[in-house]
Amino acid sequence: MKKVAIIMGSDSDLPIVEKAFPVLREYGIPFEAHVFSAHRTPDEAAGFAAAAARQGFGVIIAAAGMAAHLAGALAAQTTLPVIGIPIGGAILDGMDALLATVQMPPGVPVATVGINGAANAAHLAAQILALSDPDLTGRMNDKREAMRAQVRKKDAALQEKLAQACE
Amino acid sequence: MKKVAIIMGSDSDLPIVEKAFPVLREYGIPFEAHVFSAHRTPDEAAGFAAAAARQGFGVIIAAAGMAAHLAGALAAQTTLPVIGIPIGGAILDGMDALLATVQMPPGVPVATVGINGAANAAHLAAQILALSDPDLTGRMNDKREAMRAQVRKKDAALQEKLAQACE
Amino acid sequence: MKKVAIIMGSDSDLPIVEKAFPVLREYGIPFEAHVFSAHRTPDEAAGFAAAAARQGFGVIIAAAGMAAHLAGALAAQTTLPVIGIPIGGAILDGMDALLATVQMPPGVPVATVGINGAANAAHLAAQILALSDPDLTGRMNDKREAMRAQVRKKDAALQEKLAQACE
Amino acid sequence: MKKVAIIMGSDSDLPIVEKAFPVLREYGIPFEAHVFSAHRTPDEAAGFAAAAARQGFGVIIAAAGMAAHLAGALAAQTTLPVIGIPIGGAILDGMDALLATVQMPPGVPVATVGINGAANAAHLAAQILALSDPDLTGRMNDKREAMRAQVRKKDAALQEKLAQACE
Amino acid sequence: MKKVAIIMGSDSDLPIVEKAFPVLREYGIPFEAHVFSAHRTPDEAAGFAAAAARQGFGVIIAAAGMAAHLAGALAAQTTLPVIGIPIGGAILDGMDALLATVQMPPGVPVATVGINGAANAAHLAAQILALSDPDLTGRMNDKREAMRAQVRKKDAALQEKLAQACE
Amino acid sequence: MKKVAIIMGSDSDLPIVEKAFPVLREYGIPFEAHVFSAHRTPDEAAGFAAAAARQGFGVIIAAAGMAAHLAGALAAQTTLPVIGIPIGGAILDGMDALLATVQMPPGVPVATVGINGAANAAHLAAQILALSDPDLTGRMNDKREAMRAQVRKKDAALQEKLAQACE
Amino acid sequence: MKKVAIIMGSDSDLPIVEKAFPVLREYGIPFEAHVFSAHRTPDEAAGFAAAAARQGFGVIIAAAGMAAHLAGALAAQTTLPVIGIPIGGAILDGMDALLATVQMPPGVPVATVGINGAANAAHLAAQILALSDPDLTGRMNDKREAMRAQVRKKDAALQEKLAQACE
Amino acid sequence: MKKVAIIMGSDSDLPIVEKAFPVLREYGIPFEAHVFSAHRTPDEAAGFAAAAARQGFGVIIAAAGMAAHLAGALAAQTTLPVIGIPIGGAILDGMDALLATVQMPPGVPVATVGINGAANAAHLAAQILALSDPDLTGRMNDKREAMRAQVRKKDAALQEKLAQACE
Repeated sequence: MKKVAIIMGSDSDLPIVEKAFPVLREYGIPFEAHVFSAHRTPDEAAGFAAAAARQGFGVIIAAAGMAAHLAGALAAQTTLPVIGIPIGGAILDGMDALLATVQMPPGVPVATVGINGAANAAHLAAQILALSDPDLTGRMNDKREAMRAQVRKKDAALQEKLAQACE
Repeated sequence: MKKVAIIMGSDSDLPIVEKAFPVLREYGIPFEAHVFSAHRTPDEAAGFAAAAARQGFGVIIAAAGMAAHLAGALAAQTTLPVIGIPIGGAILDGMDALLATVQMPPGVPVATVGINGAANAAHLAAQILALSDPDLTGRMNDKREAMRAQVRKKDAALQEKLAQACE
Repeated sequence: MKKVAIIMGSDSDLPIVEKAFPVLREYGIPFEAHVFSAHRTPDEAAGFAAAAARQGFGVIIAAAGMAAHLAGALAAQTTLPVIGIPIGGAILDGMDALLATVQMPPGVPVATVGINGAANAAHLAAQILALSDPDLTGRMNDKREAMRAQVRKKDAALQEKLAQACE
Repeated sequence: MKKVAIIMGSDSDLPIVEKAFPVLREYGIPFEAHVFSAHRTPDEAAGFAAAAARQGFGVIIAAAGMAAHLAGALAAQTTLPVIGIPIGGAILDGMDALLATVQMPPGVPVATVGINGAANAAHLAAQILALSDPDLTGRMNDKREAMRAQVRKKDAALQEKLAQACE
Repeated sequence: MKKVAIIMGSDSDLPIVEKAFPVLREYGIPFEAHVFSAHRTPDEAAGFAAAAARQGFGVIIAAAGMAAHLAGALAAQTTLPVIGIPIGGAILDGMDALLATVQMPPGVPVATVGINGAANAAHLAAQILALSDPDLTGRMNDKREAMRAQVRKKDAALQEKLAQACE
Repeated sequence: MKKVAIIMGSDSDLPIVEKAFPVLREYGIPFEAHVFSAHRTPDEAAGFAAAAARQGFGVIIAAAGMAAHLAGALAAQTTLPVIGIPIGGAILDGMDALLATVQMPPGVPVATVGINGAANAAHLAAQILALSDPDLTGRMNDKREAMRAQVRKKDAALQEKLAQACE
Repeated sequence: MKKVAIIMGSDSDLPIVEKAFPVLREYGIPFEAHVFSAHRTPDEAAGFAAAAARQGFGVIIAAAGMAAHLAGALAAQTTLPVIGIPIGGAILDGMDALLATVQMPPGVPVATVGINGAANAAHLAAQILALSDPDLTGRMNDKREAMRAQVRKKDAALQEKLAQACE
Repeated sequence: MKKVAIIMGSDSDLPIVEKAFPVLREYGIPFEAHVFSAHRTPDEAAGFAAAAARQGFGVIIAAAGMAAHLAGALAAQTTLPVIGIPIGGAILDGMDALLATVQMPPGVPVATVGINGAANAAHLAAQILALSDPDLTGRMNDKREAMRAQVRKKDAALQEKLAQACE
């Protein structure tokens, strides 16, 4: 199975980005995670992306905040799908990172997920890899069913709570 | 090869959405396009998405404006990758559609491209399908090279223009 | 009397949504509350809305955050009035939820209240039901008078406070 | 049947507001339209709202732009449901009017529709009045069905267009 | 001397609004403060403003948050200058209140100060009243000089701090 | 009577600013208008404001766009009331000018009117000057009455239009 | 004298960017202009910036729109000062480009000018180069004086216009 | 070597601004820091800027929040490069300060860095001064190399952390 690369622009993004790890582990998808900065180590970032397909990666996830160039810088070096996670911090709630990630010029797309949406980046990577992996599709469908069951369980808990409030 | 489905919420979005068509044609990717509304024909939209994988689709592209629910509504019914195009019109420049498309809850991602980014949605769909299609990867790399050549040509034209201005 | 349905997209919205409960109880309006997700349990949500009128509901209140599709998804399945509460959280202050809730296409309106405006959603539901219930109208007018009295009381308290500050 | 009042803050809003008229006429709902300004004729506006219920109105629609106080000023004088239409003009795209309309304090809600959403204000008024009018409910369901048919027709037209493009 | 009226929409705004009190006291300007709500006690608010000139007020300061109609509602009832303080709270940082306060239609202005700018509202009221009160003008000029001296003092403190850091 | 000074940062703002002129003329208020730039002629701007009170001005109106410093720069040099008009142009709809005008630090207020609100700046200046001029107050009240009559006339015209549509 | 490099991400930006040319020519500063794309020709862009100091450039100006990474991508490869011009187009008024240009991480600054501020980018480049070029400083001071004279001339023209209006 | 002047509008900005100090010290660049307010001590601020070049300054850094006029006010008095730091506080996240700093009119640029970007203002000042100081250029290149090494070290630490998580 192809691997997923998770690149973050700063190790300070790790507490948000690492929410992608258990999702990929649950789906059984191998991944690597790296700290590469579009501005401090641009050549390492570019070099990694240019070589990613050859090294067995199928999807690249890139997380960055502020003028979040990382996803776009990687996407410029590969035709692998690049998923961008805009990181929102204390300033501007991540709107800067969202716009800097999603508003890419024609020909070099970044598949952008919501602000701080690390888990969804992992789900999206899985969806992409599942296209050629029926077993993974099965695991994803199971996961969806589990999500459904969890919502039903929460609704049941709410009914109980409301019933108690009326007694 | 798996097909791409392009769903738009209204036929008034067609002038923007149809910029995806020549990109897919150039890559030789089969596609269908449909008008389904998340709010006026929710059951048709849901039914299409739920059946899409069985009917040979590999990627769904969804374009909608304003409270742009279409991509999310389709994503809720399938584990195929769903690409969202926020459509920007006269009001709010598409910021409403961007936020309504990208800010999805955990477990149900939408791969969002820039506002009115129909061409990029097609490029992203091709990148996803190319993971299991080396020929398509080759065509994408050729396209990237052509893009590079075009920028170089534009730079050369600018040099000529500047040189003439100095004479 | 017709019932009010209060649907929330996640049980994490309960601390905000439950501010609607005492308002409805004070007005003597029967209600049910449920957790249905537009993206994780889309069919349950759609099914509930499609059956709501038959099951004695007169108004549906829907609360959701981020790409807040829930109110719109319910509104697509019923001609009952649907009131949307945009939930604002840590990111973007609820502006994403406000735009995703209010900017509905022609023919499928959502009656949107302010961000986190659960109490107002309940007041609005009561106003709607009161159109065919003169007693409820009377209770609402009493409530308005009580609100007026409360403001007058707060003004009196302020006068006292200012007078003390001058002594 | 109760009447709908449509109040606009300026006759310059008429080209947008009048999109509500054919919707109400199609549903057979009687309505009056007036120009009252929250700031230039505040007493007339307040007086109208205070008397509206007695004069046979069931719903008030209020449309205003910029610091759009009209809907809130009317809502302060009545417990009838008040629907607010934020009018968007050349400046700020109507974001000022949206926030000034929707962000009401607890106890005095305004049922806000999208920017320039006059048609939806009429649909929402109809949904509210239909609660005690099964015939109107029937007409609304017919309208929904017609909307569905129209989307299907547009999809069919798109298929034809795409088929022709391939020949 | 004419009095200043300080009206707040809710007593929860008092911690911000009361920053105006010491400024007025320092300038020796008499003032009253009241809680009147544009939406809960609209008639009291309107009545106060309509009578304000007769009762010896020269300037009205109005503070409100969210869909901040209070300043505009008062301005609609008087030709006294009305100063608006947009109150910013947990949601939207006060941008809603700023726009709802400042974007008034032609003929009914509100002199808007910055978000939570209660002190500046008092300074502005003093500037207005000082036009016909040379003594007050003198006190304001003294205050400006004191402000200048305070900045110079802070600069001197910074120089000392920097000098110590170098030793 | 004290004069009003109208300062604009660029003569390109004149088409918007000059909407203040007829208002002041109608009220019989003498005024001067000047082009001074906070950034290109900062000393002239500062010198004018510092001397304004001595030269018979009672109110300064300042209009500027983009990083609209003009009103603040003038306010820093005088304790006369300074009214700021944020000018909105092609970029950012005037939000930049609004924030740069209104968000003044404590002690140096700018009485900000709406974006491009030149007429309201003139009305506000008149309100300020009317505090010591009962005749002007009378003219302002007449103007308010005329505004009221105009709204009533527009409402009557609408009634006629609607009646004709029904025939 | 060191040269200025003006890099634009697309030749469609030329109508805005070329407003920098006459400013540099007027100051007698040699410059080159190029089309390099951060996303389509990332290696050419990086290579140019890495070599710029050696090739006699003293300042790099970079203009780009949308997710405007160009200035940051160049700044990552050189310690020459990089000036960023956010290009504003039809969508989002250039707010996306402003945030993507200015919000750089510590260590790799971009000296950002206003949206579409090509002339100011040239003025800023001249200010930087003038630090080691007293003649250029002299020309800049002359230019400032000419700007001042132009404002005074416009003020005189306004006085004449106003005087004529009074006759 | 020319000195850098760091001007802040209020000593409350010092905790943010002082992040510039160690950067300048590390590069061996002499600097002074002052508190001057564009609105409370406008003449001192203007006088400082007008004399700055004569007194050996090469670059001015100006930090201010809200309607952040300081950088522009200084830039109006000198042709030295002026770097603006928008200070973001509790209200509006610094968007007001960013727009008030960056959106300068043609002829008077402010080299704006990110919100609260004091360290980057210092790096930018160093880049400017390094144009005529090869030793400083060397120190900046060393710093870049150190930044690169630090990122590599963080990546190595992440690899170790991930490896441990797998054991």
